[in-house]
Amino acid sequence: MQQVAEKVRPKIDLGEFKTARAVVLLSGGLDSAVTTWIAKRECIELYALTILYGQRHKKEVECAKELAKELGVVEHKVLELPLGELTESSLLGNREIPTNGLEEGIPSTWVPQRNAIFLALAFSWAEVVGADKVYIGVNAVDYSGYPDCRPEFVSSMDNALNLASKRFVEGGPGIQIVAPIISLPKNRIVELGLRLGVPFSSTWSCYSGGARACGSCDSCRIRRRAFLDCGVEDPIEYEN
Amino acid sequence: MQQVAEKVRPKIDLGEFKTARAVVLLSGGLDSAVTTWIAKRECIELYALTILYGQRHKKEVECAKELAKELGVVEHKVLELPLGELTESSLLGNREIPTNGLEEGIPSTWVPQRNAIFLALAFSWAEVVGADKVYIGVNAVDYSGYPDCRPEFVSSMDNALNLASKRFVEGGPGIQIVAPIISLPKNRIVELGLRLGVPFSSTWSCYSGGARACGSCDSCRIRRRAFLDCGVEDPIEYEN
Repeated sequence: MQQVAEKVRPKIDLGEFKTARAVVLLSGGLDSAVTTWIAKRECIELYALTILYGQRHKKEVECAKELAKELGVVEHKVLELPLGELTESSLLGNREIPTNGLEEGIPSTWVPQRNAIFLALAFSWAEVVGADKVYIGVNAVDYSGYPDCRPEFVSSMDNALNLASKRFVEGGPGIQIVAPIISLPKNRIVELGLRLGVPFSSTWSCYSGGARACGSCDSCRIRRRAFLDCGVEDPIEYEN
Repeated sequence: MQQVAEKVRPKIDLGEFKTARAVVLLSGGLDSAVTTWIAKRECIELYALTILYGQRHKKEVECAKELAKELGVVEHKVLELPLGELTESSLLGNREIPTNGLEEGIPSTWVPQRNAIFLALAFSWAEVVGADKVYIGVNAVDYSGYPDCRPEFVSSMDNALNLASKRFVEGGPGIQIVAPIISLPKNRIVELGLRLGVPFSSTWSCYSGGARACGSCDSCRIRRRAFLDCGVEDPIEYEN
């Protein structure tokens, strides 16, 4: 009887409802870690891309490696791109990191066109591995006011990059940019990460590039506030 | 009398009608050389950007250096970006260069998202040097059918990158992508280059990366045909 019932009842393979393959931009920061864990629930195979672009906080790249290993991605690439030779930002070490709290306007930590460059690189790889989606952990709520973290930018890049995508131009479905945490406040991102089991001890947010997080740059301030809001201790150590 | 007349007649400085500053994507190929010479007529200061992206035909980078020097740009940057680690293309040496003439569809010489990546990098530099324009020598007439050479892609990238541009977001005029030869047939590009005095002997189009141009890849075929149409001898040497 049981055998018949099993034959009649179609087997539901949750995998069928998942996206087959996706590229994830994994910096090693908190946002990209939560985004990667979301992607893992939505996709079968993940390809993680980390860009070593001359950031002061190279430690995040080590975190990205740990996260990729922990999650079991199909492949993790770390691509070197010396952006400091081309552009200016306090993140690249050719300007000072501000530590006096969030200010009006776009701060000096902004790296001009960083997300456009990273998305174009991710699409290039996505085309080769046959990925249907590119995940990016941009966030436009508790953030530093970077213009390339806003939904209108992400949607416009999706349009532009698909116009240059072979599979889209040849009549295929194109590649979709997914920015799952773009509209979440930071405390909701931390909460979501906790539910998904993101190992926050292997994430790095501080801009300053010291051995321990400085606690006073914009990124540290926003992160600590979010953990405080959630009533959970941030597992990383702070300088002060 | 002459002194008075000089005071009355406003001095016409043609420079006033020129764009102050522009970044030019200069690969060292024929199209980017002509584009750079056009930019020189339209702008006061040029910043040339060449990307060493792992192309077989590295010789074009040497040509780019000669061209930048000959034209007298303010600065010429050669940025290394190992695209071959990320994506596939016969230009990157991880696939074969086709030599049987132009075929239907997008050929293997296409580097996925190359122009998107290059434009985003150029915008990043443009933001820092305060350039109003970014010139790119894409062409959608006598070309290899690359989707990222079409006007709809260029216009869409202009939109996306400006949404991530600090000067645009802060209410400024934005940065404009200029693709002056996008709608010209190749023989018109050569003709224009001849009129502008482009030193074609310092340009390199062959995909194969040999000491002399192969004469049989798509790029060599299109170039030779254009010079033939103009009744002018191509100053570079061909293998056969």
